[in-house]
Amino acid sequence: MTYGPANPLVVFTPSGKRGRFPVGTPVLQAARELGVDLDSVCGGRGICSRCQITPSYGEFSKHGVVAEEGALSEWNSVEQRYKDKRGLKEGRRLGCQAKIEGNIVIDVPAESQVHKQVVRKDADDRVIELDPATQLFYVEVREPDMHDPSSDLERLKEALKEQWELDDLIADLRIMQGLQRALRDGKWCVTCAVHFGRRRQRGRIVSVWPGFYEGTIYGAAFDIGSTTVACHLSDLRTGKTVASAGLMNPQIRFGEDLMSRVSYSMMNPEGAAQMTTAVREAINVLLGQVAAQGLIDIEDILECTFVGNPVMHHLLLGIDPVELGGAPFALAAGEGMVFWASELDITNANPDARVYTLPCIAGHVGADAAAVVLAEEPYKSEEIVLIVDVGTNAEIVLGNKDKLLACSSPTGPAFEGAQISCGQRAAPGAIERIRIDPDTKEARFKVIGCDLWSDDPGFEAATASTGVTGIAGSGIIEAIAEMRLADVIDIDGVVRGNLCEKTNRVFSEGRTFSYLIHEGAQRIMVTQNDVRAIQLAKAALYAGCQLLMDEMGIEQVDRVTLAGAFGAHISPMHAMVLGMIPDCTVENVRSAGNAAGTGARIALLNAAKRSEIEQIVTQIEKVETAIAPKFQDHFIEAMAIPHKTAPYPRLRKIARIPDTAPSPPPGTGEGGRRRRRTRA
Amino acid sequence: MTYGPANPLVVFTPSGKRGRFPVGTPVLQAARELGVDLDSVCGGRGICSRCQITPSYGEFSKHGVVAEEGALSEWNSVEQRYKDKRGLKEGRRLGCQAKIEGNIVIDVPAESQVHKQVVRKDADDRVIELDPATQLFYVEVREPDMHDPSSDLERLKEALKEQWELDDLIADLRIMQGLQRALRDGKWCVTCAVHFGRRRQRGRIVSVWPGFYEGTIYGAAFDIGSTTVACHLSDLRTGKTVASAGLMNPQIRFGEDLMSRVSYSMMNPEGAAQMTTAVREAINVLLGQVAAQGLIDIEDILECTFVGNPVMHHLLLGIDPVELGGAPFALAAGEGMVFWASELDITNANPDARVYTLPCIAGHVGADAAAVVLAEEPYKSEEIVLIVDVGTNAEIVLGNKDKLLACSSPTGPAFEGAQISCGQRAAPGAIERIRIDPDTKEARFKVIGCDLWSDDPGFEAATASTGVTGIAGSGIIEAIAEMRLADVIDIDGVVRGNLCEKTNRVFSEGRTFSYLIHEGAQRIMVTQNDVRAIQLAKAALYAGCQLLMDEMGIEQVDRVTLAGAFGAHISPMHAMVLGMIPDCTVENVRSAGNAAGTGARIALLNAAKRSEIEQIVTQIEKVETAIAPKFQDHFIEAMAIPHKTAPYPRLRKIARIPDTAPSPPPGTGEGGRRRRRTRA
Repeated sequence: MTYGPANPLVVFTPSGKRGRFPVGTPVLQAARELGVDLDSVCGGRGICSRCQITPSYGEFSKHGVVAEEGALSEWNSVEQRYKDKRGLKEGRRLGCQAKIEGNIVIDVPAESQVHKQVVRKDADDRVIELDPATQLFYVEVREPDMHDPSSDLERLKEALKEQWELDDLIADLRIMQGLQRALRDGKWCVTCAVHFGRRRQRGRIVSVWPGFYEGTIYGAAFDIGSTTVACHLSDLRTGKTVASAGLMNPQIRFGEDLMSRVSYSMMNPEGAAQMTTAVREAINVLLGQVAAQGLIDIEDILECTFVGNPVMHHLLLGIDPVELGGAPFALAAGEGMVFWASELDITNANPDARVYTLPCIAGHVGADAAAVVLAEEPYKSEEIVLIVDVGTNAEIVLGNKDKLLACSSPTGPAFEGAQISCGQRAAPGAIERIRIDPDTKEARFKVIGCDLWSDDPGFEAATASTGVTGIAGSGIIEAIAEMRLADVIDIDGVVRGNLCEKTNRVFSEGRTFSYLIHEGAQRIMVTQNDVRAIQLAKAALYAGCQLLMDEMGIEQVDRVTLAGAFGAHISPMHAMVLGMIPDCTVENVRSAGNAAGTGARIALLNAAKRSEIEQIVTQIEKVETAIAPKFQDHFIEAMAIPHKTAPYPRLRKIARIPDTAPSPPPGTGEGGRRRRRTRA
Repeated sequence: MTYGPANPLVVFTPSGKRGRFPVGTPVLQAARELGVDLDSVCGGRGICSRCQITPSYGEFSKHGVVAEEGALSEWNSVEQRYKDKRGLKEGRRLGCQAKIEGNIVIDVPAESQVHKQVVRKDADDRVIELDPATQLFYVEVREPDMHDPSSDLERLKEALKEQWELDDLIADLRIMQGLQRALRDGKWCVTCAVHFGRRRQRGRIVSVWPGFYEGTIYGAAFDIGSTTVACHLSDLRTGKTVASAGLMNPQIRFGEDLMSRVSYSMMNPEGAAQMTTAVREAINVLLGQVAAQGLIDIEDILECTFVGNPVMHHLLLGIDPVELGGAPFALAAGEGMVFWASELDITNANPDARVYTLPCIAGHVGADAAAVVLAEEPYKSEEIVLIVDVGTNAEIVLGNKDKLLACSSPTGPAFEGAQISCGQRAAPGAIERIRIDPDTKEARFKVIGCDLWSDDPGFEAATASTGVTGIAGSGIIEAIAEMRLADVIDIDGVVRGNLCEKTNRVFSEGRTFSYLIHEGAQRIMVTQNDVRAIQLAKAALYAGCQLLMDEMGIEQVDRVTLAGAFGAHISPMHAMVLGMIPDCTVENVRSAGNAAGTGARIALLNAAKRSEIEQIVTQIEKVETAIAPKFQDHFIEAMAIPHKTAPYPRLRKIARIPDTAPSPPPGTGEGGRRRRRTRA
């Protein structure tokens, strides 16, 4: 081939890559030579149609090209056959069929790019570049020849090397067992799924289909929480989430929170094994559910990723979590690791599916926190970001591109409604918003499932089916913050008993006082004990944040990101009044939704992100709350509810939070979406 | 450290490596710096005692050294403790304890070398250098520290890197599950077994013991034959075979020979799976037996190697052998491969044991032939060697260091006694040696289990317990060769009916004649059909050899090696009279015993040998008998029994083979050993 001046000029958009090619060069070949990101599974044989392109004709002064009709070879029978069979958008051509015959500008549409940009629903402005660890390759394999004996596997590898430049591949045993059939059924053409390991070394053939595989392959991203296990199934060819499902974590029967599960393991020789079995069963149930929802064959699930706190991580892997129950909180193993699905008893997936567990940051800051970091990318931020993921333990990350710190703080289960007299899970009928009039001490509220405030006309009718049943986690935050704003409680959290004389809302219960929110079929109130429980929880959270800020040498953060379901529902202003999180401009407090789950999905769709987070995790400085003397000091200080006092200068002026205050905080996370649907 | 002229000179024997070291340098350290092969599992901590050395004092003019008493530091308490506890040979020191204080000559005894030379019992003059894929390393692991969180696994890997320069290790899941316990029980000291993969890349931690592991680790070498499955258990630290066991291959119930098993698989949808299950069960039984014999824990079996013909190889791996039943005889997968024991349902070994299957040469020349090549090393020979492994198929290898050819020839089961009227397996009472007087046509014979000839006085008494029950495979070769030498059969194998008149030994049976060997409780004879069956078998074998010789362009071979149990028992001279193998000086015909099993053991004990045979196999030229037109010609020609004619110039003069003719052929293989024991 000569590239003389007579060779036509080809410009690819949107990349802008350009070059001259001899007349007759297929567009796909030109794209490859220029390193343009144009997909192909069949290697240019007109089978897969992944290489669709749109030629543009006319004068392109920007590109210095005048493209005339006829700059590409004529529409051919392969393209016509494909169009008849599957349809092809107007103006589209197949890059492997259309040949260059004159100067031309060629657009590569998004869906024809290998590294497609997958829009993240949880963050409007961010995308995931699609580049999964397992990818498909179509090959034509040489037939066996008695004169040159070589195994089917050798010839398959030879084809993958020659046709895809994949060298030094290995194959799973099941591939060898099924290879004869696939090659002969496919008339010596097969589609292979190849999994690339760490650092993209040594690919491994994990599945082989006869002929061109018309289907796609899937991956499942799991977020193993102490309370719930969530699974999102993604198409690894498009990056789209095709199904989602969640379950209560069945380990709950062995203990509500992490520490009780660790204790269960300590007390029962088979305890850890029982909990491992339980969570693995839940994983199989979820895989079955998402496969059914997505109408796919479980054999097509070739990848899983997992995130979870260290105890969940260890129990998933069948490791006794007992060492995580006390200092020095040593993980048995915490790096990013790849297993076979069968090693984790995962049966509702391809037997050769590979499982990736994200790295844990430390013995109490897990792979879930690493996933949050991967989703939120504070390591790319100029501003100092505080990321708080509240659960039974709060996992806290602080920093920016220069430095990242992480710790875990024992908030206990109060934020999740446990230990709260009228606490309940977020469900229709649960109070989620509250306002208390500072003068009359009267309460107004909203419940989940109804858009009206309790003093709006028609509220009772609208909530007749559910009633008012309790207080959700987000509601208890607002209730106590509003009680403080209305001076129903003092700075130390004591319910002012002397208000009994002024209002029926405050009433005596033995030696302490409670505040009545609602009198109906059920009496909904906040007791002194409830206030204490929330104080302890929020003090732990705040002290953790403060400890990291001390360590970082800062007095203020630029942004606060609330991760997790809880963070998605609370009112940032109330959280600040309560003293849960450090002072921050309220506009800069946002919800990241289920960022841990998003991180699991990112690792599923982009293998390079696995190396990225493994690398970042080694750079995160872990701060140990349990042994930091200052943590205790901060904790005691943070017990107070400091409205109108330091350290909340920006809130000092707040006397009343408007009904329209951002709650939940901005963000398009899970919580936000659920809410919008509820309101629609 | 400075290496000035004042530093003492240290000479190690037998390597002859020498160097000067500062006073106080431990002998182990000096050995390491010089690259002397001195073992240590504990890394010089006085625990493992693998580094025993013997200092020599006196004048060594050869080495230019005068070694005075006191050239090593004094016997110390570590050495005394070891001696008290386990014993230490007189004159021995521990290399990690004894420090250099003057010029010295230090001998490294064989058992202190890492790469010990293991003497092969099957070949007097050859050794296997011990260098197994799985090796032990003792390490001291840093304790966890809250201030510097890292997982137990990370700290273990760090220790293996710092103390053994093992980088980039990975760990099996079960290691992570047991690591916490092992580290804490061992007070942060553990012994690790590390398996090194192909090309010694990326070691994998496959077992961890608390503290210093006093035991050893084992490997099992399997030879999966169509008829029998044999297993040898070796100590991977010393290379010694500690137990052996064999079983009939339970697949026999699905078909006596290979082709009938392939047919069974074709006719029955679950046929291949049934045969896979059967052979895997046999493997587990054998592992249980060798573990019991060796008094070892099955958990300590960390390696297995397997050889077998292509059908056995595929059935072991769970691959349907159907493609091996017809041209083009395509293997599904045939390279040297590593699996987890669990992938092959091997339960009577450590769950993380690794299995290595030797490469197959072609679709009909299996991993057993590759193992024979590895054991016999024709690729290192100047002379042209013909290696014949006779079974239902004969696998034939011809060549030398410049070129190797291989083929398989369909000899059928006659050599194994099937299709022979009085054929039986080699057992006491079976005829194994025969002589026929050319004049009288009278027969004399010997049976297995008795050293007397049948015409010796006392023979009847000596064989009273067994009787004379039939003809063993080796006996039938001699019988027919002797019949030819005595002119009882002619060149075409026809039993001369006219001899009926001269002797009762020849008698009519319908239209053909038979030869009576023995008249007793059972009548032992050779029928015309028996002669035909052996003619067909030997013609196939000879034609295969001849085809390879044509291909090599030679008319004569320098050496013939008979591999396998059958080869170990036959008389080379009779085989040549019969025309089974090409003409060769009889002294250069030897038995290699169970060379396939030896090859499996070599691959077990030396990982580098795996790469070596994988490399050699790619260089062997495969010759296809089924499509070579000349094979048919050779086959037809070879039907004749050419005594006194070409192509046996060296045998032309033979009229009678002495009783003392070498049978079995020289060699110290299995057969030879069994026989010697029988005679002892």
